[in-house]
Amino acid sequence: MSMMSFAPSHSDKFAFGVWCVTNAGRDPFGDATRKPMPAMQAIRGLGERNVWGFEFHDNDVFPLGASAAQVRKIVRDVRAIMADTGICCCSGTTNLFFHPVFKDGAFTSHDPQIRAYAVHKVMHAIDLAAELGAQNFLFWGGREGAEVDAAKDPIEAIRRFREAMNFLCAYVRQNKYKMTFTIEPKPNEPRGDLYMPSVGNALAFIETLDPPNRAMVGVNPEVAHIKMAGLNPYHEYGQALEAGKLFELHLNDQKPVRYDQDLTFGSASLKESFFIVKLMVDHKFAGIKAFDAHAYRSEDIDGVWDFVERNMRTYKILEEKAYEARANRDLSALLEEIQAGNKAYEKLFTKYSPAAVRKLKALKFDPDKMATGRRLAYEKLDQILTEILLGIR
Amino acid sequence: MSMMSFAPSHSDKFAFGVWCVTNAGRDPFGDATRKPMPAMQAIRGLGERNVWGFEFHDNDVFPLGASAAQVRKIVRDVRAIMADTGICCCSGTTNLFFHPVFKDGAFTSHDPQIRAYAVHKVMHAIDLAAELGAQNFLFWGGREGAEVDAAKDPIEAIRRFREAMNFLCAYVRQNKYKMTFTIEPKPNEPRGDLYMPSVGNALAFIETLDPPNRAMVGVNPEVAHIKMAGLNPYHEYGQALEAGKLFELHLNDQKPVRYDQDLTFGSASLKESFFIVKLMVDHKFAGIKAFDAHAYRSEDIDGVWDFVERNMRTYKILEEKAYEARANRDLSALLEEIQAGNKAYEKLFTKYSPAAVRKLKALKFDPDKMATGRRLAYEKLDQILTEILLGIR
Amino acid sequence: MSMMSFAPSHSDKFAFGVWCVTNAGRDPFGDATRKPMPAMQAIRGLGERNVWGFEFHDNDVFPLGASAAQVRKIVRDVRAIMADTGICCCSGTTNLFFHPVFKDGAFTSHDPQIRAYAVHKVMHAIDLAAELGAQNFLFWGGREGAEVDAAKDPIEAIRRFREAMNFLCAYVRQNKYKMTFTIEPKPNEPRGDLYMPSVGNALAFIETLDPPNRAMVGVNPEVAHIKMAGLNPYHEYGQALEAGKLFELHLNDQKPVRYDQDLTFGSASLKESFFIVKLMVDHKFAGIKAFDAHAYRSEDIDGVWDFVERNMRTYKILEEKAYEARANRDLSALLEEIQAGNKAYEKLFTKYSPAAVRKLKALKFDPDKMATGRRLAYEKLDQILTEILLGIR
Amino acid sequence: MSMMSFAPSHSDKFAFGVWCVTNAGRDPFGDATRKPMPAMQAIRGLGERNVWGFEFHDNDVFPLGASAAQVRKIVRDVRAIMADTGICCCSGTTNLFFHPVFKDGAFTSHDPQIRAYAVHKVMHAIDLAAELGAQNFLFWGGREGAEVDAAKDPIEAIRRFREAMNFLCAYVRQNKYKMTFTIEPKPNEPRGDLYMPSVGNALAFIETLDPPNRAMVGVNPEVAHIKMAGLNPYHEYGQALEAGKLFELHLNDQKPVRYDQDLTFGSASLKESFFIVKLMVDHKFAGIKAFDAHAYRSEDIDGVWDFVERNMRTYKILEEKAYEARANRDLSALLEEIQAGNKAYEKLFTKYSPAAVRKLKALKFDPDKMATGRRLAYEKLDQILTEILLGIR
Repeated sequence: MSMMSFAPSHSDKFAFGVWCVTNAGRDPFGDATRKPMPAMQAIRGLGERNVWGFEFHDNDVFPLGASAAQVRKIVRDVRAIMADTGICCCSGTTNLFFHPVFKDGAFTSHDPQIRAYAVHKVMHAIDLAAELGAQNFLFWGGREGAEVDAAKDPIEAIRRFREAMNFLCAYVRQNKYKMTFTIEPKPNEPRGDLYMPSVGNALAFIETLDPPNRAMVGVNPEVAHIKMAGLNPYHEYGQALEAGKLFELHLNDQKPVRYDQDLTFGSASLKESFFIVKLMVDHKFAGIKAFDAHAYRSEDIDGVWDFVERNMRTYKILEEKAYEARANRDLSALLEEIQAGNKAYEKLFTKYSPAAVRKLKALKFDPDKMATGRRLAYEKLDQILTEILLGIR
Repeated sequence: MSMMSFAPSHSDKFAFGVWCVTNAGRDPFGDATRKPMPAMQAIRGLGERNVWGFEFHDNDVFPLGASAAQVRKIVRDVRAIMADTGICCCSGTTNLFFHPVFKDGAFTSHDPQIRAYAVHKVMHAIDLAAELGAQNFLFWGGREGAEVDAAKDPIEAIRRFREAMNFLCAYVRQNKYKMTFTIEPKPNEPRGDLYMPSVGNALAFIETLDPPNRAMVGVNPEVAHIKMAGLNPYHEYGQALEAGKLFELHLNDQKPVRYDQDLTFGSASLKESFFIVKLMVDHKFAGIKAFDAHAYRSEDIDGVWDFVERNMRTYKILEEKAYEARANRDLSALLEEIQAGNKAYEKLFTKYSPAAVRKLKALKFDPDKMATGRRLAYEKLDQILTEILLGIR
Repeated sequence: MSMMSFAPSHSDKFAFGVWCVTNAGRDPFGDATRKPMPAMQAIRGLGERNVWGFEFHDNDVFPLGASAAQVRKIVRDVRAIMADTGICCCSGTTNLFFHPVFKDGAFTSHDPQIRAYAVHKVMHAIDLAAELGAQNFLFWGGREGAEVDAAKDPIEAIRRFREAMNFLCAYVRQNKYKMTFTIEPKPNEPRGDLYMPSVGNALAFIETLDPPNRAMVGVNPEVAHIKMAGLNPYHEYGQALEAGKLFELHLNDQKPVRYDQDLTFGSASLKESFFIVKLMVDHKFAGIKAFDAHAYRSEDIDGVWDFVERNMRTYKILEEKAYEARANRDLSALLEEIQAGNKAYEKLFTKYSPAAVRKLKALKFDPDKMATGRRLAYEKLDQILTEILLGIR
Repeated sequence: MSMMSFAPSHSDKFAFGVWCVTNAGRDPFGDATRKPMPAMQAIRGLGERNVWGFEFHDNDVFPLGASAAQVRKIVRDVRAIMADTGICCCSGTTNLFFHPVFKDGAFTSHDPQIRAYAVHKVMHAIDLAAELGAQNFLFWGGREGAEVDAAKDPIEAIRRFREAMNFLCAYVRQNKYKMTFTIEPKPNEPRGDLYMPSVGNALAFIETLDPPNRAMVGVNPEVAHIKMAGLNPYHEYGQALEAGKLFELHLNDQKPVRYDQDLTFGSASLKESFFIVKLMVDHKFAGIKAFDAHAYRSEDIDGVWDFVERNMRTYKILEEKAYEARANRDLSALLEEIQAGNKAYEKLFTKYSPAAVRKLKALKFDPDKMATGRRLAYEKLDQILTEILLGIR
């Protein structure tokens, strides 16, 4: 394995947010540590490193209030870089959190003018994303939340969010943009609590959209956001995938249940990261694999590119480990034993019928005997997997 | 306010799990501290204290392996207590977690025989619950989870869970039982991670059931379980309510992000508890308000009844506070100011049409001006609310 | 109680950090929402509101690189405000976290030049604090931590921290400044993990300073920082107080185990805040009660002053509640019962002697009987306290 | 590396609690899943697997209320197993948490009789531990905490704890037992909050014991307990080691900030576990390395022994990785660069003197230049380390 290059190729469908690369290292207690890299340089640098796609907030690339001429010029410049390097624009999104106007929410603001401005801003951002060929458009409701629950009924907030999403879905459909939407959940920060805290909340919300809109909306869960609620990313990505709603990944890492760290993928927990990759391998995930992280604040510009490269490299290493695990005979033999069961009882309740009920109700079970009939050698299993990860099997 | 009695009445629709009262104080590091109270005594005691309903796991009331004759005798005894005291049986559920047979899951076990036994056990429990008149049947998948993710694909687990739920929904419908189902989510404990960790996950899962089954399945979120993931109960209950899926409450309290404490409602956080009650008042919640907690392990039997009474009393006090808050003029005036906005911009994107798009896209906005145009006096608002809670306004 | 004014007076020894008032609402995802208030205006405003003292980082008041003349001018201006309003300067501190030079630590940096600069900067800040009459000097090691543990041995970090502290203690002693030092622990943020994460870690560290320095160093624990590790502020403040090391409080609030929220005191948890105040009342705490929080980002300048006032007001209300609880007869009677015990066994091991050992070893105990001999009516007790807090007893 | 056996030997000083092996799989929501293994069989099994030492609670081996004759018989039996297998008894401790008598604390109970019983029980347990040759005696205050803070002042609790510890230290010293004491901190569970929540709290408490007792008391921090407060084990063990107080390790694993999981060492986080091992290697830790965990509840008896073996094996693998990392040239070269600094500024404040102050105060610094003068290639460094862990470097 040590001989492999783990170099990324376009077939990996790796992407980065422009903001991940231009990040200047500012944090709540400290000033920028790096000069902000121009967006054009960021996109070019990603393309030159074989990254398949880039994602952008409108204002990462197009300054707030840019004139039509400026916009045209920027679009031309971006397209030139895309043509030069082969990178595509895979996803767009709207900055609805940085400007003070959104300090108490965008779609969920009490002020109809602010809500209207938010939808207006998103429509323009969608047009730009469509022009650059984006296949997905992200919604992270960074200011859709509250510190003071006395001021807003969460039911009202959800209704406002839905109104905006329904309108924007219809906008995309009517324009015949080939574009999906994804919601990115987060439990808290920068608001005390955010209204769409977990993957489940977003999946459930999607099912309440107007029926024609539901199919075009999925989720792009972020590892760090999942771990901020102490949840298991393997399980959360799993439910989204099973529901047919996992359109895009936002990969990074995080120590659980603390501030949003946006660490390099795999840098905080190798095992949890491995299971995310394994899920994608096992289910042949063909969506966008975007990294949404940033380099440590102590890095200089070279360090930012080290950061870009190691995210992809770690993913590729873990992908190779997933294939190794699948090929490992000790692991397969043990899994087969663990997953075996009494075949005589299969499919007893797969299909409902009164006969199935009668049969199942009439059965006699001996729970004490069933409890001890078969070993479940999970300590052994987990150890084999651990040793594959550590490279000694 | 201090003159009020805050005594419960049946119209409050308060309920307790039988297990909450019979709890003997055992914990992971210590033995039982109280003699286990017989279920009959628990139900009678609840009824005598004006509790509207009781909930039960099959094996709280009917021992595992009870004969048909024993079962009939117990049903008669329970009915006699119900007749005597006026308490109803509002919800049933199945113990799918205590016996070692379920050590690696019930519906999600790898072993088809264990899955069949689980469904068989639930059908019998449903029959008993129906016989006692229960209007709801609870599903807490206490063992549906994993410590070792190498052994089970979460997608497989979800599919197995769904198969069981679809069969059981059909069973209830075919029997014409007037009974809903609710799922109770929990992030972890006793398993490392549970597959249905949050309200959102359960709501999303319900939408993947066979279409005829969806309407009869809702959620009964527990405060402690929500806070174990650090989420906001006001927001979580809100989303479930807005989706029409909040059939029942499981009220208790918990310090966030630690082991499952099942504390008395209101005893850890007055403000969060207040907002739960306020939501129910504001939206005229008419479902079951069950307390799922237990007395401190240091209490004796008298203390268990103190515990029962104070849960209801605290709810009633907070309900009164919710009405006080609504009547408070300082609060209303401030809320009106905060919730006001520029009416000229209302309903611009309520209904999609090309004309609405053109109008909204053409608008000019001045975000800097919009950001500072109106104060949002949340410190003041939260202080007024705090002082209402503290009884000094 | 509702008739009381709860107005602050100098005898409360309330203080605010200048930075709490000048805070402009910037956060990791958003720009400033308020114009930064000049420090002079902040200090004057605090003084005018009967705040006893202010605290400052060197660069809150004295710009980095200010000339000697500028410094003299500023000192004069501050003193004029102090004379006008009666506010004192109670505590100083050094900004060792904002400038990129400290991006990988100040006292614990790998670079001797940066460490030297940090100590140099602190000495100058101490001189200024002394000149303004500060009685305490704070050390919050905001950048003393790591994301990448491969780079630094924590033992080396502790040694560097100690070297700096020993030197600075000696500096204060030699200058005969009447000034104590306090360390402010924090578990994480802005660094992945900080080296002095809890009150205990700081107290233990202090005992490893050079003997003549130990007495002058204590702690100023912050509520939010305690709750970020999920710990109980009542217990943490208690241990510091018992050790004679609680020189100053940093009061605010926080939902547990998430990003640093710096909320208004009492706004997240009334009960935990009450117990902090009760501890101070019960033990006649005479140190500095500083608030280290900031107004919600959505507030304007008026809202900042609302915020200032409500922190003190809530403290005073809870202080009144502590006296009420002490005077409540139901509570006292129950406490007396709970705290009673078998007096015959008192003082058996207060003083070590072979006779005491013989006596204690020879005793016969009946644990089963002892376990059930006395009720511990904690549900009742907690309910009485809850109702005192809610103002209905 | 894959050729190595990673087999334990006595020089590793590995130990297990007897309770870790006899654990029958009971949890808060479920019954025992395994027959409780007799203590003798557990000790023998450990000895046969080359474990160096065992630890025991008095009642793991000696039933509560055992007669003097029974005790003598058990001591003989244990000694026979020790002689047969070469295992030693390294540590004793007292069960002060299981019996209901301790439901509201042992050393910190309100009842003097219960406190006396606790000290009496510890003295007898110390005698037994001494007789079996234990070099350390553990104090985990499993019931020393509270759910209801209204009932107990934490200052009183600390004083009671200290009184007991001072007496017991004197008891050991007077008996000339060659035995140290260690305190094992834990933040919560089974009590709402425990009084000695973190390593720091315990270290600070030790410094308040009577002076002759301080040297004999250290800590035995448990990984899971550290992670339940979201703290960094590398840093916590580091501070204890630096203070000369790390007498024993309690190794296991845990997902952060949730219920106490007591997972196999290394099974939840490979990287954090690696740094613990690295610290012991780097500082030649010669104390006891005890594992305090238990097999998954789903394991049978064979699985318990799989569990025992994999804990030690993982430790040995990570130890080998620590040596590999030290020998890796890429890593060393980068570390050297990162740890380099401006030598001209070394030792400027190592020793206090007025001359040192004058020199340091007079220096001119250019923070902007210092901030950018040297790269800190932490992304690269962490990636090299990650790849060593993954076995591909």
